[in-house]
Amino acid sequence: AGRAVRAVRAMRAARGVALAAAAAAVALAVAAWRRARPVREVLFFPSRPCCIEALLAEAAEPGAPARPCPCPLPSGDTALSRLVRRLLSARRSLDLCIFSFSCPQLARAVQLLHRRGVRVRLVTDSQYMGLHGSQIGRLRHAGIQVRHDQHSGYMHHKFAIVDRRMLITGSLNWTTQAIQSNRENVLVVEDAEYVKAFQDEFERIWEEYNPANYSFF
Amino acid sequence: AGRAVRAVRAMRAARGVALAAAAAAVALAVAAWRRARPVREVLFFPSRPCCIEALLAEAAEPGAPARPCPCPLPSGDTALSRLVRRLLSARRSLDLCIFSFSCPQLARAVQLLHRRGVRVRLVTDSQYMGLHGSQIGRLRHAGIQVRHDQHSGYMHHKFAIVDRRMLITGSLNWTTQAIQSNRENVLVVEDAEYVKAFQDEFERIWEEYNPANYSFF
Repeated sequence: AGRAVRAVRAMRAARGVALAAAAAAVALAVAAWRRARPVREVLFFPSRPCCIEALLAEAAEPGAPARPCPCPLPSGDTALSRLVRRLLSARRSLDLCIFSFSCPQLARAVQLLHRRGVRVRLVTDSQYMGLHGSQIGRLRHAGIQVRHDQHSGYMHHKFAIVDRRMLITGSLNWTTQAIQSNRENVLVVEDAEYVKAFQDEFERIWEEYNPANYSFF
Repeated sequence: AGRAVRAVRAMRAARGVALAAAAAAVALAVAAWRRARPVREVLFFPSRPCCIEALLAEAAEPGAPARPCPCPLPSGDTALSRLVRRLLSARRSLDLCIFSFSCPQLARAVQLLHRRGVRVRLVTDSQYMGLHGSQIGRLRHAGIQVRHDQHSGYMHHKFAIVDRRMLITGSLNWTTQAIQSNRENVLVVEDAEYVKAFQDEFERIWEEYNPANYSFF
């Protein structure tokens, strides 16, 4: 009977250990799922007008005391400020494929990243990059690598990839008119399937638009 | 000693049952994950020219014998044929928010769904819907509900929602020029977070563009 009692005790102990192990496994799985959970955000425009000076200043000099901006715009949470925040999160690389880029605020954010040592590559459309208000000349002047198509068809993408990890894409051209007046959407995506497909597309275009391949006639 | 042996046997049997249950739970979880795994696809344009007659015929009369199309275009797997297939999968509803819609092939697919009893709602841009080649008049004439903005800003979205379940969105306007000549992207998304955000945006716009709210001056 002593052995029977010991066997039953052993069985109970084994059950306890198994339950504890199962609980620990579930807790670990939940933690891993939370950590691995990709960012998924949708921004809709038009965006309320807002001041992004504080965002840019904080990105330029992290921790510096905030100087209030004299402009009358609020600096609240808007679609534009969210977009700028996502861009400014870049630490290593920013790959841009933008059909029409004339918004000075977004150009300043890109320049700031370039100055901070982020590797910025920019692909744009040859027919739109020379239009009045285009920021492409200014970005080139600042030393940012720019490539463009030589086709009659448009390079109509409007996407950005932050650190080869986060895709920002949608209907929005980077123009003040689009940001302030149009109905537009931007998706922020970290799911690897989407990011990889767009990164591959970027590399294809970057190579195809290599100036060594331009033809002059 | 007989009780001890019985207790050990009972413990072994319990362990066997627990293992079998765990294996069944894992198998069920894997099956559920596979079933629940959302569609995630990216289409890049320009698309190779292709004939979509076979796709439209199959959607119009499922199971009918295929009649070869006399046109010289191949009917292979292209970005356009994939886009059309996704649209033709609609069974109950198709909500469209399209800035510029002049591609006759996509208009035929939408008309076909309307004839098949799918509830089609279409929002478009007031300044682009009257341009040469626009398919909006034809779709309205076919009895499809169309609403448009009254703003100076553009209704610049280019998205479709199939059965309130699948989002199709990107840079692509529904024009033959864009499909055949431009660098464009389209995402196919079933992740509920994205679909819900766009469905809500669609309902907001649909209500805002209600003709009862139009002002005439």
